[in-house]
Amino acid sequence: MVYLTRLEHFNAAHRLFNPEWSHEKNELVFGQCANENWHGHNYDLFVTIKGEPDKGTGFLMDVKKLSTIIKEQVTEKLDHKNLNLDVDFMKGQMCSTENLAVAIWNQLKTNLPGNIQLHSIKLYETARIYVEYFGE
Amino acid sequence: MVYLTRLEHFNAAHRLFNPEWSHEKNELVFGQCANENWHGHNYDLFVTIKGEPDKGTGFLMDVKKLSTIIKEQVTEKLDHKNLNLDVDFMKGQMCSTENLAVAIWNQLKTNLPGNIQLHSIKLYETARIYVEYFGE
Amino acid sequence: MVYLTRLEHFNAAHRLFNPEWSHEKNELVFGQCANENWHGHNYDLFVTIKGEPDKGTGFLMDVKKLSTIIKEQVTEKLDHKNLNLDVDFMKGQMCSTENLAVAIWNQLKTNLPGNIQLHSIKLYETARIYVEYFGE
Amino acid sequence: MVYLTRLEHFNAAHRLFNPEWSHEKNELVFGQCANENWHGHNYDLFVTIKGEPDKGTGFLMDVKKLSTIIKEQVTEKLDHKNLNLDVDFMKGQMCSTENLAVAIWNQLKTNLPGNIQLHSIKLYETARIYVEYFGE
Amino acid sequence: MVYLTRLEHFNAAHRLFNPEWSHEKNELVFGQCANENWHGHNYDLFVTIKGEPDKGTGFLMDVKKLSTIIKEQVTEKLDHKNLNLDVDFMKGQMCSTENLAVAIWNQLKTNLPGNIQLHSIKLYETARIYVEYFGE
Amino acid sequence: MVYLTRLEHFNAAHRLFNPEWSHEKNELVFGQCANENWHGHNYDLFVTIKGEPDKGTGFLMDVKKLSTIIKEQVTEKLDHKNLNLDVDFMKGQMCSTENLAVAIWNQLKTNLPGNIQLHSIKLYETARIYVEYFGE
Repeated sequence: MVYLTRLEHFNAAHRLFNPEWSHEKNELVFGQCANENWHGHNYDLFVTIKGEPDKGTGFLMDVKKLSTIIKEQVTEKLDHKNLNLDVDFMKGQMCSTENLAVAIWNQLKTNLPGNIQLHSIKLYETARIYVEYFGE
Repeated sequence: MVYLTRLEHFNAAHRLFNPEWSHEKNELVFGQCANENWHGHNYDLFVTIKGEPDKGTGFLMDVKKLSTIIKEQVTEKLDHKNLNLDVDFMKGQMCSTENLAVAIWNQLKTNLPGNIQLHSIKLYETARIYVEYFGE
Repeated sequence: MVYLTRLEHFNAAHRLFNPEWSHEKNELVFGQCANENWHGHNYDLFVTIKGEPDKGTGFLMDVKKLSTIIKEQVTEKLDHKNLNLDVDFMKGQMCSTENLAVAIWNQLKTNLPGNIQLHSIKLYETARIYVEYFGE
Repeated sequence: MVYLTRLEHFNAAHRLFNPEWSHEKNELVFGQCANENWHGHNYDLFVTIKGEPDKGTGFLMDVKKLSTIIKEQVTEKLDHKNLNLDVDFMKGQMCSTENLAVAIWNQLKTNLPGNIQLHSIKLYETARIYVEYFGE
Repeated sequence: MVYLTRLEHFNAAHRLFNPEWSHEKNELVFGQCANENWHGHNYDLFVTIKGEPDKGTGFLMDVKKLSTIIKEQVTEKLDHKNLNLDVDFMKGQMCSTENLAVAIWNQLKTNLPGNIQLHSIKLYETARIYVEYFGE
Repeated sequence: MVYLTRLEHFNAAHRLFNPEWSHEKNELVFGQCANENWHGHNYDLFVTIKGEPDKGTGFLMDVKKLSTIIKEQVTEKLDHKNLNLDVDFMKGQMCSTENLAVAIWNQLKTNLPGNIQLHSIKLYETARIYVEYFGE
């Protein structure tokens, strides 16, 4: 079994605030991340799949096809978007990196070829903060 | 003469649109960068100063003081902000990386110690795009 | 369960030598790392925690609080220090990256909130050498 | 138990084509990677070993010795080489990154000291594509 | 005047050998870089242009258009190619990074919009070696 | 004219303190950088030379020879050393990155082949601080 990872990028705006809380509590908990005018990030997304390489190609999966699936299912829906307002699969959720990583897992899980297992999502919000999700 | 560079970061939302143009022309020219719900970036800012090192310290300038000036004059006004809405020194300007680099130069130019010259601003919008300005 | 990682930095001097060995044996085993006048590194420290995100915030843990704990328990005690002479939790141990990673784990293990598990310490000594410890 | 990782580099030419297939099928499956005049990469190789640090040195293994073994068993046989033509341990295999990672594992597995376990091979083909192998 | 830089990538095979020299002299001068079976690299190409930002857009140049020009004039002719055999604008030249940087300059110099000046080509052969050319 | 840059590394301990000043003034000016037990860094050194490529090789200079000169004249004298105590060409100077960059320039200036000009020294003390010197 080998593991293959592809890095993709997207840039997005977001805001952390809980609509069930008061303005004051949002400020207290999220600080400047609650800015009502939004802020944003360059996200780095590492998608790792696993399985056995094909004898004929030597590939676990053609990395260009993996890239196309990630773009169609994930990054085209996130890139140059507002995570709180524009993304159907984030509706009703806090736009934390934790929740975004899990939502990206769910977008990809059912859209890979049958012989390929999704292993992990690794999502950098900044160069110093990242979240991983393994579907556990 | 030596050159000293300090890297600082900020995360911000922005949008590219010219209020004097129609919605259609903005879409045509700026594409997804015109998204009315904003998008955002992790910006990397390299500030370079030049001059002669002090004999007593061996420093051109204490890099912690340089960092403090950059934070007070620039990054605290940009970090976790909306460049179009929240930043006084970007008011009335297109929020391109080009204009932002020039505006950051102007913020710093008059706020450095007398023996220090500002040499350049280098501003990364993404890992693959950056703008430099030398005050020329 | 999600995994959240925070990167922190510290710069320190150290030296590899075993006080129970002769000068010659130390030279033979550690080479220039045994230099009696010390050498040093910029260390990159990745701390990974795991658990379930909070429903209200979407956070596993506020990454600023995680950063504060790492600074108070670890990096303020190591940054701009001599690992052999200045650090109470390295006393009596060889200052290898292996031992330092384990010692950092022990510093953090008992200082995290109750719902958070420490998952791993990843410590870069140089861009080409790193050690990981999972508490096993 | 601690994990120690060493990064090494090599530059090589390769080509993806299956000699049992027609020229057309190779073009269809591998596209420009099948270029009969070859192309190439700067490969980054991360080798991770695991075990218990030695009491006397604090080391899992002297990282210079690990580097020497990787060079002798792997990178000297790959660096500035053609993976399809020049490398005995890739003969008869597709030169995919997946197969190369497994072959590197096999080169190292039996050439480490007795108390050291090989944990993983992580091989970057480009900054955006890498393969991992854990010997499973 | 502002400077705008775009990073593009390409992967290629090459070989250093002078056809006017003996096999022995090529081996002596170029060592393993003369390997008759080729080797290769992931090249990082930084293209810097300069001029005045447009009032209407705030752009020196739409970076997507710059990227398209670089791809059409340069990287599509180099990516997954053999620099010695497949590239018309390198014919009859030694395939050193120095000569390649100058050739890329010549490809781009006459293919930029009239108000844009090409400022520099910066070409990384490996993470530790790069060449710059300013058209001087 | 082309510019060729080579990156080399060294790890060293140092301390900032002026022996003509009191302990208190050193503490006040240099803070934790004055720690009497030293601290240290992984330094990244970029050496840039310029000139015309040779017709026969396509090289400005064989980068391996450049690397050898840098090692012999600079990094072997700095790597795993104490900059204040072990380095003859830093004797009597404050061990700031500014002074170290100038000293490295002086070490290299007179040790390059006659047709090669030294263009610049770029010295990273940390990933966020660097100094450049052009011999002006």
